[in-house]
Amino acid sequence: MNKFEEFNGFFNPSTVAFFGASNVMQKFGSLHLTNLLTAGFQGKIIPIHPNGEKILGFKAYKNIKDVPEDVDLVVIATRPDIINNILEDCGQKGVKYAIIVSGGFSEIGNEEEQNRMKEIAQKYGIKIMGPNCSGEVVAPNINITHVPWPPRKGGVSIISQSGTYAVQPLIAISTKIGVGISKIISVGNEVNTDLVDYLEVLEEDQNTTCIGLYFEAVRRGKEFIELIERINNKKPVVIIPIGQTEAGTRSAKSHTAAITSPGYIIDSICEQTGAVKVKNSIEMLNLLNGFDSLPLLKGNRVAILTMGGGPGTLMSDLFESHGMNVPVLSEALQEKIKPWLPPTASTMNPIDLTYSDDMQNYLNVVPEILLKSNEIDSLIFYGLMGNQYFTNILKVPDYMKDLESVIALKNFGDMMDDFFMALFDELVDFKEKYNKPIILTCYNTREEKFVAYLQDHGIPVYYPEEGVWVLIRMWQYSNFMLSKLNK
Amino acid sequence: MNKFEEFNGFFNPSTVAFFGASNVMQKFGSLHLTNLLTAGFQGKIIPIHPNGEKILGFKAYKNIKDVPEDVDLVVIATRPDIINNILEDCGQKGVKYAIIVSGGFSEIGNEEEQNRMKEIAQKYGIKIMGPNCSGEVVAPNINITHVPWPPRKGGVSIISQSGTYAVQPLIAISTKIGVGISKIISVGNEVNTDLVDYLEVLEEDQNTTCIGLYFEAVRRGKEFIELIERINNKKPVVIIPIGQTEAGTRSAKSHTAAITSPGYIIDSICEQTGAVKVKNSIEMLNLLNGFDSLPLLKGNRVAILTMGGGPGTLMSDLFESHGMNVPVLSEALQEKIKPWLPPTASTMNPIDLTYSDDMQNYLNVVPEILLKSNEIDSLIFYGLMGNQYFTNILKVPDYMKDLESVIALKNFGDMMDDFFMALFDELVDFKEKYNKPIILTCYNTREEKFVAYLQDHGIPVYYPEEGVWVLIRMWQYSNFMLSKLNK
Repeated sequence: MNKFEEFNGFFNPSTVAFFGASNVMQKFGSLHLTNLLTAGFQGKIIPIHPNGEKILGFKAYKNIKDVPEDVDLVVIATRPDIINNILEDCGQKGVKYAIIVSGGFSEIGNEEEQNRMKEIAQKYGIKIMGPNCSGEVVAPNINITHVPWPPRKGGVSIISQSGTYAVQPLIAISTKIGVGISKIISVGNEVNTDLVDYLEVLEEDQNTTCIGLYFEAVRRGKEFIELIERINNKKPVVIIPIGQTEAGTRSAKSHTAAITSPGYIIDSICEQTGAVKVKNSIEMLNLLNGFDSLPLLKGNRVAILTMGGGPGTLMSDLFESHGMNVPVLSEALQEKIKPWLPPTASTMNPIDLTYSDDMQNYLNVVPEILLKSNEIDSLIFYGLMGNQYFTNILKVPDYMKDLESVIALKNFGDMMDDFFMALFDELVDFKEKYNKPIILTCYNTREEKFVAYLQDHGIPVYYPEEGVWVLIRMWQYSNFMLSKLNK
Repeated sequence: MNKFEEFNGFFNPSTVAFFGASNVMQKFGSLHLTNLLTAGFQGKIIPIHPNGEKILGFKAYKNIKDVPEDVDLVVIATRPDIINNILEDCGQKGVKYAIIVSGGFSEIGNEEEQNRMKEIAQKYGIKIMGPNCSGEVVAPNINITHVPWPPRKGGVSIISQSGTYAVQPLIAISTKIGVGISKIISVGNEVNTDLVDYLEVLEEDQNTTCIGLYFEAVRRGKEFIELIERINNKKPVVIIPIGQTEAGTRSAKSHTAAITSPGYIIDSICEQTGAVKVKNSIEMLNLLNGFDSLPLLKGNRVAILTMGGGPGTLMSDLFESHGMNVPVLSEALQEKIKPWLPPTASTMNPIDLTYSDDMQNYLNVVPEILLKSNEIDSLIFYGLMGNQYFTNILKVPDYMKDLESVIALKNFGDMMDDFFMALFDELVDFKEKYNKPIILTCYNTREEKFVAYLQDHGIPVYYPEEGVWVLIRMWQYSNFMLSKLNK
């Protein structure tokens, strides 16, 4: 049995029992059960509750041993002092997988109860995620966390030593860049399954294309480093280290019972393995979204296609001061794109259209000429206005509402999304056909229909500075891999 | 006449004439006129159009010289080749202020026409903003840009050498942190008014509390540096430099005709004057929002009050590795706050509540004890769930909708905003009373009612990492000013 199969009960359970769910919705257990239900889970849900009877509409049992069928996975979110008795019952019932959400163990110095938990688990062969964790997501139909946010299904998997970070930043990022999730795993106190185990699982997981780690400390250093090095050859690993200063360490110790690894160790791990270190959640999720959506970079040359000089300049600066190249296009290539641009445009690179309302030239004709050339390895856009822009312009006084041109603008706004989408489909094809990353940047977010369409079809959309960082870090990864091959 | 009065025609015009506005809404001129109108401008709007008659509902004239009344300000967005003739007419009419949006001058090598523009302006004493600019905003009632986004009125003013950056990032940031704007000025090619002029204006402007610069190059270096140094004593200046690499310079030159200043010069300007350099628009607007909303820091000690360990750890790391201090609270202070926290809470600092549903203790009781003490200089929160969270949980199947606890949760969600607001009002009072910065961080944005309420009442709300950076940079400013005083 490989590692993925060994852990399958967490990720593909048929029957899930809940301890701590009740008819009081505010309880964590009730939230977990409800979130699993509303995610569209197709298996069986069984609440275990001292009163028996009905919990949130489901038939409940007083003890798990009373449940007639097999139970694959239990989720425990009760008072900590009764958990080990529950676990004993689960063991007797033959349960092999448990997510223990509740805290109150080694993170507050209660080593004794945590050791007892470990012994019971060992006696019955139970794998525990936690205790003191935020649960798991297996997109799209399993959400056993307290956050009711079903992310888009995709290839990004995250393992987190922080429960809060496992789930909460995703709310922000989903509404902004719609990151496509495969699995989220909150490891908590790691009583008998740890970071290294879940990395091995994700290495084998067909649905995971790249991996993010919220990293405080590792309990098996050698295995961890070897594993990261091996995985990173196939699936990019992105690390966000937390807990590296005196106050940070104090804080980490108090919430996951871990002695944190100092920063220089993480730096040297990244240097050796090629894993990419980032500073915060936004950067991590932006980058993982890039890895999941785009082909890898084959070289460091980027073309910037912009409606507006300032963003072109700022993006150029960022690229060039971080190892990427915004090359002046050859005369021949410049001549090829010139006929499709306004006379005021600059064609050297950045290609600054200044302003153009010919979206076909901007989004299709010129990009294809650039991507087809052997002068660039990636393409980044700046600028698109969404329907919201038009909606706001059209907040005009009543007496203007009947003006022919106001009606025309309204019609344009209404048809714009559809018009854009045909052009976007072409762009998606280019990405595949020329096998080069394409990113669009603007200051619109996913609430705009066109943004969501692009993101859901594999063209990431970010704020300009963020899009640049994604390409810089994707190149950092490719560059490491290429230089390793050449050794 | 001081500088502010000298430039008053731009910022407080009674009559504005538009060249380039027509009944075709898509034209830039039409957008400018419409945006001024819908911002609630109280003065008179007069379109000038070769057909005369009615433009967007306003009586139009064929020539500005036909207008019977005085015109304070003209906005020109026409073909570049007729602009100097228009300007000549404006001069004869006695107009003293012109915003020239159109490009086609020195930025594309057309020095000749730009010099002629300068001569005509000199002959008639006309001050020109531009050419090749994005216009201006004077909140709340003047918006002469192509972006229909009326920002909240506040104390933040921005001068930009990039037209795009002058307006577009504000869309994103307004929807996220609701930055309070006083003035936005897009200087374009700076034909006869420049960055230094507008800095002098904002120095005197009673409504401006802090200033942001999108900076490519300065034409009067010595005056610029002296001025920044002087202004920064009273109003923090934040600089985002653009155009500092080979490709960046190439790009900048092609769009504002400026030779950019290399990075080390900007670094040395900041070092000498105490102006704060930032990397991108989001950071700049976050920081300016902080300066505008909060009292200055008197020291570097910060208390972190968090619902969740990971964010507390990450924030601690960031603070401590950038010159701020997350001190362990004294035993006496810890004893004072302990009774108000859950038994699992950590009280050292970060103060990690783990989880609590007692919002009064979290948002009022404990904060006041901390702020009153002489152990900290600022307070940052992590964690609040908004109504959206509840709305999503409550997407339950129909058969659950009648459950008492589901109804209870729905009621709680509905009343939550009001309940929070009373607690927030207290928090706003604490900020004034104890004269210390307070920031709330979470992953909710302005669409949540509670977030908008806090932001509009002077408690900034950011993502956690961003909130930390705001405090770090506010301390960088205060520290510079304090050390200057001590010299």
